[in-house]
Amino acid sequence: MTTDLFDKHRTTLERAIEACRTRESWSAYGEPSTASPAAFEAQLGRPFEDDGPGVQAVQDDEISPYTGEPLGISYLRADVDRLVAAATQAWPRWREADPRVRAGVCLEMCERIHAHAAELAHATVHTTGQSLGMSLTGSGTNALDRGVEAIAQAFAAMSRVPGSARWARAFGPSTVELTKRYRLVPRGVAVVVACASFPAWNVYPALFASLVTGNPVIVKPHPSSVLQMALAVRACRRVLTASGFDPGLIGLAVDTTAEPVTKLLVRHPAVRIVDFTGSAAFGSWVEANAFPAVAYTETSGVNSVLMHSAGELQPVLRALAGSLCLFSAQMCTSPQNIYVPRGGLPTGDGLVSVEEFAEGLADAVRAVSTVPRRAAAVLGAIQSPATLTLLDEVGKQAAARGRVLLDAQPYEHPRHPEARTSGPLLARVGIDDHDLFAAERFGPVAFVIDCDDADQALARATQDAREHGAITAFAYATDDAYLDRAENAYALAGAALTSNLTGPMPLNFSAAYSDYHVTGLNPAGNASLTDDSFVAGRFRVTQSRRAAAASRE
Amino acid sequence: MTTDLFDKHRTTLERAIEACRTRESWSAYGEPSTASPAAFEAQLGRPFEDDGPGVQAVQDDEISPYTGEPLGISYLRADVDRLVAAATQAWPRWREADPRVRAGVCLEMCERIHAHAAELAHATVHTTGQSLGMSLTGSGTNALDRGVEAIAQAFAAMSRVPGSARWARAFGPSTVELTKRYRLVPRGVAVVVACASFPAWNVYPALFASLVTGNPVIVKPHPSSVLQMALAVRACRRVLTASGFDPGLIGLAVDTTAEPVTKLLVRHPAVRIVDFTGSAAFGSWVEANAFPAVAYTETSGVNSVLMHSAGELQPVLRALAGSLCLFSAQMCTSPQNIYVPRGGLPTGDGLVSVEEFAEGLADAVRAVSTVPRRAAAVLGAIQSPATLTLLDEVGKQAAARGRVLLDAQPYEHPRHPEARTSGPLLARVGIDDHDLFAAERFGPVAFVIDCDDADQALARATQDAREHGAITAFAYATDDAYLDRAENAYALAGAALTSNLTGPMPLNFSAAYSDYHVTGLNPAGNASLTDDSFVAGRFRVTQSRRAAAASRE
Repeated sequence: MTTDLFDKHRTTLERAIEACRTRESWSAYGEPSTASPAAFEAQLGRPFEDDGPGVQAVQDDEISPYTGEPLGISYLRADVDRLVAAATQAWPRWREADPRVRAGVCLEMCERIHAHAAELAHATVHTTGQSLGMSLTGSGTNALDRGVEAIAQAFAAMSRVPGSARWARAFGPSTVELTKRYRLVPRGVAVVVACASFPAWNVYPALFASLVTGNPVIVKPHPSSVLQMALAVRACRRVLTASGFDPGLIGLAVDTTAEPVTKLLVRHPAVRIVDFTGSAAFGSWVEANAFPAVAYTETSGVNSVLMHSAGELQPVLRALAGSLCLFSAQMCTSPQNIYVPRGGLPTGDGLVSVEEFAEGLADAVRAVSTVPRRAAAVLGAIQSPATLTLLDEVGKQAAARGRVLLDAQPYEHPRHPEARTSGPLLARVGIDDHDLFAAERFGPVAFVIDCDDADQALARATQDAREHGAITAFAYATDDAYLDRAENAYALAGAALTSNLTGPMPLNFSAAYSDYHVTGLNPAGNASLTDDSFVAGRFRVTQSRRAAAASRE
Repeated sequence: MTTDLFDKHRTTLERAIEACRTRESWSAYGEPSTASPAAFEAQLGRPFEDDGPGVQAVQDDEISPYTGEPLGISYLRADVDRLVAAATQAWPRWREADPRVRAGVCLEMCERIHAHAAELAHATVHTTGQSLGMSLTGSGTNALDRGVEAIAQAFAAMSRVPGSARWARAFGPSTVELTKRYRLVPRGVAVVVACASFPAWNVYPALFASLVTGNPVIVKPHPSSVLQMALAVRACRRVLTASGFDPGLIGLAVDTTAEPVTKLLVRHPAVRIVDFTGSAAFGSWVEANAFPAVAYTETSGVNSVLMHSAGELQPVLRALAGSLCLFSAQMCTSPQNIYVPRGGLPTGDGLVSVEEFAEGLADAVRAVSTVPRRAAAVLGAIQSPATLTLLDEVGKQAAARGRVLLDAQPYEHPRHPEARTSGPLLARVGIDDHDLFAAERFGPVAFVIDCDDADQALARATQDAREHGAITAFAYATDDAYLDRAENAYALAGAALTSNLTGPMPLNFSAAYSDYHVTGLNPAGNASLTDDSFVAGRFRVTQSRRAAAASRE
């Protein structure tokens, strides 16, 4: 339990704390040195070697969205009590370690995960359906940066509590002197429940926030997306062993769609912290049932685009199309509802009718989604077959009510002819078709919505955010007063508003150390990456006082 | 909405933030300039003048524990919806005010409450049964200091979020530049539920933590202890008016024992924050039912004294007796279970048998509780008649099982012959009589418990803390190794341990800015005065981004 690893990573930690304060652009990690699939391919069809409790069983739920083939990997499956027992047994040494020791070990874990970036990225590709590029960045370096951000915020929060104090006060003619000691005590066993399509981005912050504050952690991957988390957990466990800690501190709870264990974990009497990413319905169940555990959730929302006015329209359409296509909109930050004034959109090239806007947007989407090489890089594959069923349903509803501008058409993946793919479904509806677009339709679905004007759109969209949740929002306007109104309204509705963004950055890109992700002000989740309240409750302060002297004058 | 009040109180705020960091002794307030009962007496039997919603009704539940007479004051009673509506209507201007403006206004409120210290203290005396001395300090300056502490911690937390950032990052050959703005958004209507016997100490921190972070607050006093809170709320409302804010921002929900409104408030759909002080059972209900509101609770616990060894015994007995007598142990920090090794207690004057210890403690208690002037100053009166019933019950149980060392005898109050008083019930039992002492017996009840040794006592007491809650603990030992073990065990059990304290400071005195009160690690409550997690969740961060430029090389 030396501070060697703290010394090794101290500059990174200090730089991360500084970045959280200034919220400027920064990353702890460079591009991975390799993107070779060799390590991933060597794992296929074989047992996943790790030394945790349980018995090996093939994970039938884990099927590549690209090949349609099972990965054929068997993982150790242990029942919940055994995982909790292992975590509890490993806990004391970790709990008693200095926060600097724990921070050093956690940052070493991040570095080791990064060292396996290529293997983790291919695992991500063949479980989530992400493209390799997104797997290396969004699920790789960016996700790790959010983990480092959580370590930095938690370390800063712990550092604000002094280790001791000397306290002296007069009581009548006497002065009482006490020496006080303040101990940081972790809350207890933490459970991190991951989603199927983008596990790392939420798991790393939760895992490291709980770990660095001294808690044991059980990671519960989605049964169809186990491998990336298994690799990350193994890398962390190896760092624990190498640092003299019990690797049982971090467990992996592998379950199946047929026999899920999430509710057992959340309700386990020893569990004190739950981080959950997934559906809004399950998230509400977790928030209502986690007690006495504290719950941090990120669920889903319905994100909107407000078109008020624009200078040049084409870059806007390209930006929107890119965002609708990115990972086939299987992201909690993807926009869905695009409001356009029915009287037309004022632009630098004159008034653009809703019809022209909608056709232009459909063209811009097609320019990505129907060109196989571009589509493969941007859209990737569809994680779950259920998404295709949903697309079919929504397509029928939209056709019955409005007009389908673009059918949800698969594209042919250049390397994987069996890939489960789909371009966006784009439909034009009226603002009165609220039942069609009020809730999140997870996947590549977007609506162009005729509205009276951009203020009506703002009222509708922010009310939907308050009632159904929203994480992001987008506005285009040449009128600053409108953007001011929109920013104020979205601040209260609890979604992040991005205005007038075009160019190469994906609209819904969320930067570690800079962008607060989820606000807790609407049903899209109660936790924010990474504010003080995400880290401050994971440890508690207990104090002791000893009489130093009681001098009488 | 100027920063005049911030400028006025800036030094106090900075000093408080510094005290929270060093945790040294400090107070923002001197002794009150008067303790005159004139203002309090002028209020008796008259309507309480305030300009909130509702209709005046005499508060029959408010009966002085000293005189047995109703105070006869009528308060405005408004239904929950009207209070929430008033709070919601007053909210926008406060929410939009700069945190410095809000901090200045809150510190002015504290100053105005302090200016009415004498009136509030007499109100406290005749509702809670506290002595005048305790009403002026524990419910006066010390409670206000805990309020200032919460303001300081919340202000520091808000200050850690920058207002804006400029962010630039390369995407391929282009650099994307964004200007970002971070807004602090309060969570929403806050409810503060006060207890009957010591309302100010928990209400001030909760009230000001929620207020300074921008939330409207409804204070719900106990029906038998309204006046002090009504005076405090009115003082705060007048500061709001004088500062140009709507006084409806702070409401007072007056209810009756027959028709309580707490559950209606906690479950009101507009309520987003609940602070609760009261019984463990009701606290658990609040924690389980507050969702989607966030709940901060302080309930009750069973606090212990571990006798391992001592130098001089008499100062220890005096300190323990003082703590058992202080406000007739109607405090969540009062000790109840005193463990003594049945083989005797090693002291500087030789081995002291349990019998001798128990008799000595009883004598030390009698020296306070049977001398009317001392008793009046230390014990005060019994807030609720239910406490006398409980004392009777516990006395019978103890007599049937062990030996009653001291009956719960009333003392004759020098100025109020009708006062409801009681000295401590002190009983000697064995460690196997666990059912008698496992739970908190609220009021002046203490057990001297024969145990094998101090380590058995430590195991029993910390397990009780984990299962039934505990806030404080006390140990006496000349063996530092034992104190180290005890500190570690209590750190995990989540109670604050005070060791070897004798002299003029009451054992269970908890100092603002220095002592963390409640840990959240056991059932005695989930919130701590005042750590980051007590304040960080009362506001959220929402962000907006605007494209600054997208330059292509």
